[in-house]
Amino acid sequence: MNIQEIIRKKRDKEELSKEEITYFINGYTSGEITDYHAAALIMAIYLNGMNLQETLDLTMSMAKSGEIMDFHNITDIVVDKHSTGGIGDKITLILMPIIASLGIPVIKMSGRGLGFTGGTVDKLESIPGYKTNIGDSKLIENVKECGIALIGQTLQLAPADKKIYALRDAISCVENIPLIASSIMSKKIASGADKIVLDVTVGSGAFMKDRESAIKLSKQLNKIAKLSGKESICVLTNMNEPLGRSVGNNLEVIEATQSLQGNIAPDVKEIVCTLGAYMIKLAKKEKNIEENKTIIEQQIENGEAYKKWIQLVKIQGRCNRLY
Amino acid sequence: MNIQEIIRKKRDKEELSKEEITYFINGYTSGEITDYHAAALIMAIYLNGMNLQETLDLTMSMAKSGEIMDFHNITDIVVDKHSTGGIGDKITLILMPIIASLGIPVIKMSGRGLGFTGGTVDKLESIPGYKTNIGDSKLIENVKECGIALIGQTLQLAPADKKIYALRDAISCVENIPLIASSIMSKKIASGADKIVLDVTVGSGAFMKDRESAIKLSKQLNKIAKLSGKESICVLTNMNEPLGRSVGNNLEVIEATQSLQGNIAPDVKEIVCTLGAYMIKLAKKEKNIEENKTIIEQQIENGEAYKKWIQLVKIQGRCNRLY
Repeated sequence: MNIQEIIRKKRDKEELSKEEITYFINGYTSGEITDYHAAALIMAIYLNGMNLQETLDLTMSMAKSGEIMDFHNITDIVVDKHSTGGIGDKITLILMPIIASLGIPVIKMSGRGLGFTGGTVDKLESIPGYKTNIGDSKLIENVKECGIALIGQTLQLAPADKKIYALRDAISCVENIPLIASSIMSKKIASGADKIVLDVTVGSGAFMKDRESAIKLSKQLNKIAKLSGKESICVLTNMNEPLGRSVGNNLEVIEATQSLQGNIAPDVKEIVCTLGAYMIKLAKKEKNIEENKTIIEQQIENGEAYKKWIQLVKIQGRCNRLY
Repeated sequence: MNIQEIIRKKRDKEELSKEEITYFINGYTSGEITDYHAAALIMAIYLNGMNLQETLDLTMSMAKSGEIMDFHNITDIVVDKHSTGGIGDKITLILMPIIASLGIPVIKMSGRGLGFTGGTVDKLESIPGYKTNIGDSKLIENVKECGIALIGQTLQLAPADKKIYALRDAISCVENIPLIASSIMSKKIASGADKIVLDVTVGSGAFMKDRESAIKLSKQLNKIAKLSGKESICVLTNMNEPLGRSVGNNLEVIEATQSLQGNIAPDVKEIVCTLGAYMIKLAKKEKNIEENKTIIEQQIENGEAYKKWIQLVKIQGRCNRLY
């Protein structure tokens, strides 16, 4: 097998086999395949596409390029949430403490800003003393103690995706459904999630500019989740204007805190309640979405979610920075 | 201007401006633009194409990326010949001494093997003592003395083309009409040719596999020649089997020598006579191709072409190797 022939096949719109995709991912991760080979292949994928099987194979090879986490020794299921990114998106900071306050364990690995979109890790790190890199044993200890950990992606999490994402950013190949879907799902699979609510943002402040492509991406994400033994639900959300009242790492932390105290912007509230309702559905098989939304709201009103948030910030502030 | 935006435009099938193409070529030649940026752009060009204006702009920027030769102080016109490559192609070694023996000055810079095709420079270097890198002043001295110089492409000749060609080879982007046309014409323009007969090979042993694409390439080559103030004629030749009786650098030199002594394979003879006839047409405005073919044949029969070949090998054997 050689990379030139793999590039030629995709250039000529041929389907790549699982072996070819794995050969590329392993070679690129180890550095045996160069950036320019990868750049040519990624552009050919961008322009000529990938079918579902190829996208699944790409997802799985990227997931397996590093460590695959498994938290089933501390929890029956891991429910995760992921957003395709936007401006002023502080949903994770609000939603995850709510979920944890309901007794559903939360182990969430977030990324940094990509292109024009902000990153949850950057936001968390604007909290003085908050550590996003705490190591596996501390992570498990924290989840056992307070039911939640919001951390950064470890260096071992889907390293192929990290390398390919940086390359895609450099060569203008970000907005592509098979590449976006495989990037998201590889990280979710590697981070040990069983059930995932996917917030697919649509609009001028998102990678998917229109409803049609957002629906296409959602279908692809759900299919890959299913084929890799996971369960997922996609929720399309509007990203034609910044979410909530503030944009900026620390400003968004402040807004998240206020939101958990009850002072929540209507657009933020709607997304938090909707995503949360589907997370409850996935975690507890409670199918009544409207009832689930009420449960989410109650956790803000009764102060439990805010308490969980403070507990999280305190506990992650006490950890040591690992790298 | 930035390379990401240039890549994005070509990715989205937009036309690149002259300024954008020049920015890319200058940046890539100097090393400011990386191989992976270039690889992504080249793949986007391969898949989304370039119109005539873009191909001309690419040709001219690559030609201007190094030194542009000018031999008008020693000759009124420079007539050149170029083949798109094949197996067993020793035409240059036979044809150019014939042309020089007719008093038409020959200054030809040849390349090395590309992919599966042999290179004239490699063949010449299989002659013990023959120098293909003799420097400008010796080149001019030799042309003045014996009317012919067959040398290698200098490092200063279209360096952007060298870099892009090597990249295209590595990322499976060789067989593409705008890229082939601009590569050939940039070198011909930089090497100071005024009039060029282009041997466009067609078949399983050539880059153009069918007549249709060979005709398309020929039209593109002729248009670029015209727009850059040159005159060109394309001749389609069959490359479904190796040319002549031998394949291999030194074997082909031996066959070329025998051919000039009159022992010439029919397929080689036909191509030599046809290309030669058009070179006479371009150099001397003698329009009767059949008569011109007879002139070419006569130069073999009367021994003049062979004498010129021996004179060339002797004179270039006496030169010093420069780099």
